[in-house]
Amino acid sequence: MANIKCCIVQLQLLALISVALAAMHETVAASPWSPATVVPVARGTTSTPLPGDPNTRFGDMYVIDDPLTEGPSATSPAVGRAQGFYLFLSQHELAAMHYLSLVFTAGRYNGSYIVIQGRDTIPAKVRELPVVGGVGRFRGATGYGLLRMHSFDSTTKNAVLKIDMYLNNMK
Amino acid sequence: MANIKCCIVQLQLLALISVALAAMHETVAASPWSPATVVPVARGTTSTPLPGDPNTRFGDMYVIDDPLTEGPSATSPAVGRAQGFYLFLSQHELAAMHYLSLVFTAGRYNGSYIVIQGRDTIPAKVRELPVVGGVGRFRGATGYGLLRMHSFDSTTKNAVLKIDMYLNNMK
Amino acid sequence: MANIKCCIVQLQLLALISVALAAMHETVAASPWSPATVVPVARGTTSTPLPGDPNTRFGDMYVIDDPLTEGPSATSPAVGRAQGFYLFLSQHELAAMHYLSLVFTAGRYNGSYIVIQGRDTIPAKVRELPVVGGVGRFRGATGYGLLRMHSFDSTTKNAVLKIDMYLNNMK
Repeated sequence: MANIKCCIVQLQLLALISVALAAMHETVAASPWSPATVVPVARGTTSTPLPGDPNTRFGDMYVIDDPLTEGPSATSPAVGRAQGFYLFLSQHELAAMHYLSLVFTAGRYNGSYIVIQGRDTIPAKVRELPVVGGVGRFRGATGYGLLRMHSFDSTTKNAVLKIDMYLNNMK
Repeated sequence: MANIKCCIVQLQLLALISVALAAMHETVAASPWSPATVVPVARGTTSTPLPGDPNTRFGDMYVIDDPLTEGPSATSPAVGRAQGFYLFLSQHELAAMHYLSLVFTAGRYNGSYIVIQGRDTIPAKVRELPVVGGVGRFRGATGYGLLRMHSFDSTTKNAVLKIDMYLNNMK
Repeated sequence: MANIKCCIVQLQLLALISVALAAMHETVAASPWSPATVVPVARGTTSTPLPGDPNTRFGDMYVIDDPLTEGPSATSPAVGRAQGFYLFLSQHELAAMHYLSLVFTAGRYNGSYIVIQGRDTIPAKVRELPVVGGVGRFRGATGYGLLRMHSFDSTTKNAVLKIDMYLNNMK
């Protein structure tokens, strides 16, 4: 999120029928060796900062393009990208809405993507995000993801998040 | 909408199986006793104002976080929040697209939310908005909402809108 | 897209049950005889231009309201509008995410609309876009669209794109 300078996000796809693993690497602050994977595109106008994150305001919008890898390590093999945007749409809590596609460019889901649209109450232990669409092997898929913080480095602001995806109607 | 300074929105959930009532209170202009629940985050560039609302332009985007209550009264018990954004995406009519979650924090749907994504032709008597996803008790739910203007105060710009939600596949 | 000054987009609805034809006319640069149907509302902050389009950046957002006609000709009878927005959400390729409604105002789908949310890898020959919702005759519909470039005029920047929509569960 906005105050996370470089977060590594682990993503697990646990289909009700089949299972896949992936990881998502998010970089807010660009460095010579790591370009930003998150860019702010719009700012809210409320002067009240959100709880737990004084740099984030109600209405802030970020576009993301994070590498997806098989596991939580930054050197884990790439399987795709997590692309979309999120909006801080709560006045009173640190919560964002994700409008996100998990785009696979390698592995068993190569050429397929899932569209997720759901609410991320960032301090919560588990966040449920519904699947709204899918393409390729995910065409017609329904289901949801459970998002969890795996680890967080308060110095580097690196984070590891996991999503367990529960999918029906996969091809 | 953009020219509605403080609107009270009644929301009814009329599931095909079960029924719930809620209300949505939208405040565009902040006051000492009522913070803004709608913030503009992006502006369109077309100089032509939309019909019926000279302050709104094609491309304008607003983020909202409105209280949800059981009934249309401002003092009705709170049941959650309506959070998301809308975009004025018509050049020739006063119409917005809603990308909205109805987040319940009390009552029988506490901890659940519905994701709605649909078109609001504001002057129309009834607007149909499809459900694209749901979480918790709304996990896997399908259906739609019918949005209606309940009342409008031209002085305060307060409005009361109702949504009747017709849902299938609820838990 | 951003460097397409005026594109004519042909749209075909090929339902699994029923078939319809439509066309979408997109104008980025306004002229006395043709108002802009695409407006930029937010800009990304990355300095790296996207491949194949130096004017477009990761994070750019556009709102669109394109005429829909029966066929690819600019003089083909109007059947509605394609309204929504798209975001350039890839750092390394010319790819946009569409959040789009196909709104019919004439013909056999008059009063109905489909909501599409999917990824457009612009140089690709075929792009699959999932349906996430529908209203009226598309209420409860599921399916997807296949988007193809039909023709492109490098001088006028006019383009003709086709979408073949494959829909289930139509009324």
